[in-house]
Amino acid sequence: MTEAMRIGVAGLGTVGAALVDVLRRNGEAIAARAGRPIEVTAVSARDRSRDRGVDLSAVAWHDDPVGLADDPRVDVVVELIGGDDGPALGAVERAFAAGKDVVTANKAMVAQHGASLALKAESQGAGFAFEAAVAGGIPILKALREGLAANRIGRVYGILNGTCNYILTTMESEGRGFGDVLAEAQALGYAEADPTFDVDGIDTAHKLAVIAGLAFGAAPAFGAVTVEGIRSIDAVDIAFARELGYRIKLLGVAALTEDGLEQRVQPCMVPIDSPIAGVGGVLNGVVVEGDAVGSVVFEGPGAGGEATASAVIADLVDLARGHRPPAFGIPARRLRQAPAAPLGGHVGAYYLRLMVVDQPGVLAEVATILRDDAISIETLLQRSRDPGQIVPIVITVHETSEAAMMAALDRIGRLDVVRETPRMLRIERL
Amino acid sequence: MTEAMRIGVAGLGTVGAALVDVLRRNGEAIAARAGRPIEVTAVSARDRSRDRGVDLSAVAWHDDPVGLADDPRVDVVVELIGGDDGPALGAVERAFAAGKDVVTANKAMVAQHGASLALKAESQGAGFAFEAAVAGGIPILKALREGLAANRIGRVYGILNGTCNYILTTMESEGRGFGDVLAEAQALGYAEADPTFDVDGIDTAHKLAVIAGLAFGAAPAFGAVTVEGIRSIDAVDIAFARELGYRIKLLGVAALTEDGLEQRVQPCMVPIDSPIAGVGGVLNGVVVEGDAVGSVVFEGPGAGGEATASAVIADLVDLARGHRPPAFGIPARRLRQAPAAPLGGHVGAYYLRLMVVDQPGVLAEVATILRDDAISIETLLQRSRDPGQIVPIVITVHETSEAAMMAALDRIGRLDVVRETPRMLRIERL
Repeated sequence: MTEAMRIGVAGLGTVGAALVDVLRRNGEAIAARAGRPIEVTAVSARDRSRDRGVDLSAVAWHDDPVGLADDPRVDVVVELIGGDDGPALGAVERAFAAGKDVVTANKAMVAQHGASLALKAESQGAGFAFEAAVAGGIPILKALREGLAANRIGRVYGILNGTCNYILTTMESEGRGFGDVLAEAQALGYAEADPTFDVDGIDTAHKLAVIAGLAFGAAPAFGAVTVEGIRSIDAVDIAFARELGYRIKLLGVAALTEDGLEQRVQPCMVPIDSPIAGVGGVLNGVVVEGDAVGSVVFEGPGAGGEATASAVIADLVDLARGHRPPAFGIPARRLRQAPAAPLGGHVGAYYLRLMVVDQPGVLAEVATILRDDAISIETLLQRSRDPGQIVPIVITVHETSEAAMMAALDRIGRLDVVRETPRMLRIERL
Repeated sequence: MTEAMRIGVAGLGTVGAALVDVLRRNGEAIAARAGRPIEVTAVSARDRSRDRGVDLSAVAWHDDPVGLADDPRVDVVVELIGGDDGPALGAVERAFAAGKDVVTANKAMVAQHGASLALKAESQGAGFAFEAAVAGGIPILKALREGLAANRIGRVYGILNGTCNYILTTMESEGRGFGDVLAEAQALGYAEADPTFDVDGIDTAHKLAVIAGLAFGAAPAFGAVTVEGIRSIDAVDIAFARELGYRIKLLGVAALTEDGLEQRVQPCMVPIDSPIAGVGGVLNGVVVEGDAVGSVVFEGPGAGGEATASAVIADLVDLARGHRPPAFGIPARRLRQAPAAPLGGHVGAYYLRLMVVDQPGVLAEVATILRDDAISIETLLQRSRDPGQIVPIVITVHETSEAAMMAALDRIGRLDVVRETPRMLRIERL
């Protein structure tokens, strides 16, 4: 067996500690697959004294991750610090400057600086890999870059945030409200004390930008992602969705349209018998639609120390074998700056929920507005009859442009009988 | 861009023609991902005059695939002839002897000769890849070899034959019998005129042996696979399964047990809400259980020209990039000859259906036998009451050894009141 590949691990949180542990536990099998041992020779973290459950006594310690990147005992820098810039970016840039390979789990950094980092890596002949940045242990980036390389991808979509999926799954199965379930998720450790990144869709958008980069040979463009989170999802919408044969999921969707690259993170209604609807709890799932292969579905743990470490190690095994494919599947200098599809250009079916005064003529008013905007009603549900009270009306409409839908919604929202801001959800055609 | 990688395609059936077509249609995108163009320079097939819908006028023609392997214009031989020996094996061996890379979709050949061929390839420094041999367009072998390389795999199982899955799915959804649905599948082109390889589980066993080789670092051992097909599945069992919360699927299961490597192809009952139960129609699905990652599910088209061509091209892109990992994930000389777990050693839950004379005391007789073999009943269904007539009794039992189960079944089958051979199915714990 040839000499060990020496890695420096920057960041010793849950993933870093799991990485060290799995590399030791499965070291022999990993070395057989990698063609040589993978050895942790240096680490960096802020607090040297914390017990992380792994023995680091024989490993060089750096307080500063940039110092770790400079360490001549390190061939590959594994960046697990997080954050789109700061020390994480500093360590990665230093590593590339020194011609060293980088493996990272940092979705924010790759979503924001992926293309420029890939250029730096390639100019130095260094490897740059970030399987762990998206969908935890599911090898989806390798699949897009290599396993499905024959295909023109038309659309890729997925459930990329386990926290949101846990909340939505629990809201549905237990008929509870968002705030209630979020609080429980926080207590269980499934959600952060500040849940903004998760529940407002930012985390999903980071991952989607990375996926879209690989799927479409484009520079990741986090800023071009339309982002909507799940805070406004109401238990009543989940119940209506179910009645209509759908489930509400926070999807990241990237699609190549005639008008450009559409990237959006939104709660969507998906057919209840579709594979993505079956991805429950904290799991992640991704569907890739290729012109040759058709639809391929990937499902698995999207987070957690060991699952994420599994993805980091997969990248390390590639590097150990000398496999350094371009980070986004094609040379970084050839990545497109794909024009973003205009907002409102999306064509699809929609779900509307209106809270209206239960009185004669309401449906006629609403239907007239939809007709005037050439929007065709598919189903209409008016569950309760309670004259004079506020009751929900649920409407699903056939394919129409989002712009037409928004215009109609604006007019509907201004009707006297409509007493809350109308709720609109996309129905995703799968 | 560097010079083209030149491939010779042996076998121009559905997959071969689709391969040529996709390589042309998506040539530019594939070249960007491969780092250079992939060009078909030679083909071989028996009938030169047949119209395959692709233009082959500029390509060298060989009547003999071994001649194609010898052709100096060919860098990589793509073997799409099929059959575990004969011309397919001859062409592959000739290619390795000449130091050329081989990509194949031939599951029978890889299941039977995979380890020795991998040895030959490695001794010559040649690449050997067969993603297309298993689960069509789903990049499952790459996932096992690379994407999940960090893991010790405990079990891998899947639906690997689209024909059987179509038949079982249709039997369930339409409440029809096996023979009836098979005839329809043949008329629709989903099943061969001679369906033996598919419905008797041999095709699944070939694919399972290949998957197990990769998952467990073992020489594929097709002969060690216990194989049972779906001919004996009765519509009544499908209906009972559903009533009990299960679905019947033909699974290939490979698991590392204390007693050795268990490999079996059997119709199994799987919980109706498990991901594998949701894999319907002609689709394939594979679940990998790794110690670090947990369970990862892959689902997609398991057959068809373009889906299979997608997998072939993925292998070609790897070769074009110089990525030649060991065929089974670790060097061929280190592949284990894993001892086969003994038949009967399997421990699991079971489903039994007995056709009995409806008379007092029948249940007591059956229950006594099960008790004597220390088998614990979980549920018992006796649907109809029709004294003196033959009626079904369905029993599910808690975990027990297959040996105990077989012994009990033998005794039960010999009871006077039992009028048909008892039907037993494994309930797969997922």
